Amino acid sequence: MIVALAGGVGAARFLRGLVRVAPPEEITVIVNTADDDIFHGLSVSPDLDTVTYTLAGAEHPEQGWGLEGESFRTIGALSRFGVSPWFRLGDLDIATHLFRTERLRDGATLSEVTREITASWGITTLLIPMTDDAVGTRLTVEREDAKTEVLRMQEWFVKERTAPTVRNVEFDGAQNSVPAPGVLDAISEAETIIICPSNPVISIGPILAIPGIREALVARRSRVVGVSPIIAGETVKGPADRLMQSLGIEVSCVGVAKTYAEYCSTLIIDERDASRCDDVEAHGVRAVVAQTLMSDPDVAASLARSVLEAME
Amino acid sequence: MIVALAGGVGAARFLRGLVRVAPPEEITVIVNTADDDIFHGLSVSPDLDTVTYTLAGAEHPEQGWGLEGESFRTIGALSRFGVSPWFRLGDLDIATHLFRTERLRDGATLSEVTREITASWGITTLLIPMTDDAVGTRLTVEREDAKTEVLRMQEWFVKERTAPTVRNVEFDGAQNSVPAPGVLDAISEAETIIICPSNPVISIGPILAIPGIREALVARRSRVVGVSPIIAGETVKGPADRLMQSLGIEVSCVGVAKTYAEYCSTLIIDERDASRCDDVEAHGVRAVVAQTLMSDPDVAASLARSVLEAME
Repeated sequence: MIVALAGGVGAARFLRGLVRVAPPEEITVIVNTADDDIFHGLSVSPDLDTVTYTLAGAEHPEQGWGLEGESFRTIGALSRFGVSPWFRLGDLDIATHLFRTERLRDGATLSEVTREITASWGITTLLIPMTDDAVGTRLTVEREDAKTEVLRMQEWFVKERTAPTVRNVEFDGAQNSVPAPGVLDAISEAETIIICPSNPVISIGPILAIPGIREALVARRSRVVGVSPIIAGETVKGPADRLMQSLGIEVSCVGVAKTYAEYCSTLIIDERDASRCDDVEAHGVRAVVAQTLMSDPDVAASLARSVLEAME
Repeated sequence: MIVALAGGVGAARFLRGLVRVAPPEEITVIVNTADDDIFHGLSVSPDLDTVTYTLAGAEHPEQGWGLEGESFRTIGALSRFGVSPWFRLGDLDIATHLFRTERLRDGATLSEVTREITASWGITTLLIPMTDDAVGTRLTVEREDAKTEVLRMQEWFVKERTAPTVRNVEFDGAQNSVPAPGVLDAISEAETIIICPSNPVISIGPILAIPGIREALVARRSRVVGVSPIIAGETVKGPADRLMQSLGIEVSCVGVAKTYAEYCSTLIIDERDASRCDDVEAHGVRAVVAQTLMSDPDVAASLARSVLEAME
């Protein structure tokens, strides 16, 4: 069995490769839900949906969220009511949120709804939210005028386009949350545990903030392999580089190794970072070089194979 | 000031004519909300929306509900989840429901949300729901196998396409409801009170079931004029004829006169029913003949003029 910790688009693209080189039904993905929020009354789970849509082969080919062939008629019509729909939910995507919102209101857990949604897409890989409790990333940002403010993840990422500098990150609700059913068992029983190429701070960070998960990973450290989301000092997509920098983490595979060192024994780094192997290993993390820029599904499958081979 | 009691499409088409022959801002429309229901977690108010969309000139030209140029991408995508979306909400329409649902959840009353929605469409006529309380039409139907069942309005009308015979109609919640703010004042102050050409049983009936409204109309009987929705024994649209028949009401302008007689002094009947004037007046209701089949907005305006002239 393989367990993967996942955020959004980077993880989704990696997982699409992984299911081509390992039996999909033997993979359990633990997904960040700290970006979840309510928009226009709808319960939206961005990372769960990105992974779901990508594993279903239905994801938008470029934008990194949402569905292929999406339209935005409902969200466009909302602007009539003075609502500022900065979080653009597509018409097809809204069906997912309507279904989830209604099931949650009926008393289903997010785990249960996630299983129903993934089953409806024909996905045999098990997706589990990190927790069924409400946990939300809160970013303390500093404005140009030096004033600070606390933003929710999507406010900072989508509405403010990551412009304000982040001074602190907290996961509201995490300390009183519990891992979703199956999370700790999956980690303790997995042959290989993969930290997908996701944002270490706000995608992997929240998963580790759920009480019990970090300890479970530490106990399995020798079986944990990470994939650096930083290539030659930059992220492929998303704000990981800016975020790491403003939090004083070196924006490199070395910074990732240092962040993960406590619970991760092996880190896959990109060919362009081959010269940093020694620096990674100085943090007690074995470095394995591979092509990590997933320019297409074939490369993603090849990367996934490299990850599994590194742990053989 | 003019007050109109309104259901769905027939009322909407009449009102579109009325606002062409009387100042729109001097008209108050009291709208049936007993067809309101929750679909996929969204608070839907069919009659309020039909009147709103029609007064905005944005209504679908044929189907009698929804918006022109509508699409059904979200509702189509919902079928993936095993949800049977028999109540077809359009993508543009869903924006209205998302807005209303969120505002209601935030604590706004239906009256308040209705004012916000109509204002956003540039409508200067005041639309008031009959009540801000939850009232729902419940139809006891008899199946072919003689078994009875209680259906909600949209279940009978849309899902079952009015096939089961209705044995009884009740308005759940009506007896503990109160008229929305402004309803009773509007009735007591109006120069003319129009009962729009709507279903007497399930569109006008629920409005009268709200405690206080029937009494307020009875007190103003001399100023109340109805428009028969039955022309030559048939309805133009909707199930009024079937419903009246199964409840033992004569399916004619005479049956309408008898139903309204207590609180309505004048009834506009169609030219094709001119021979029934005496039968209408036998119920103590003055009959006025006009062209009531609103084949286009000009005819609707002409009908509205006839209604106002009948009360001069």
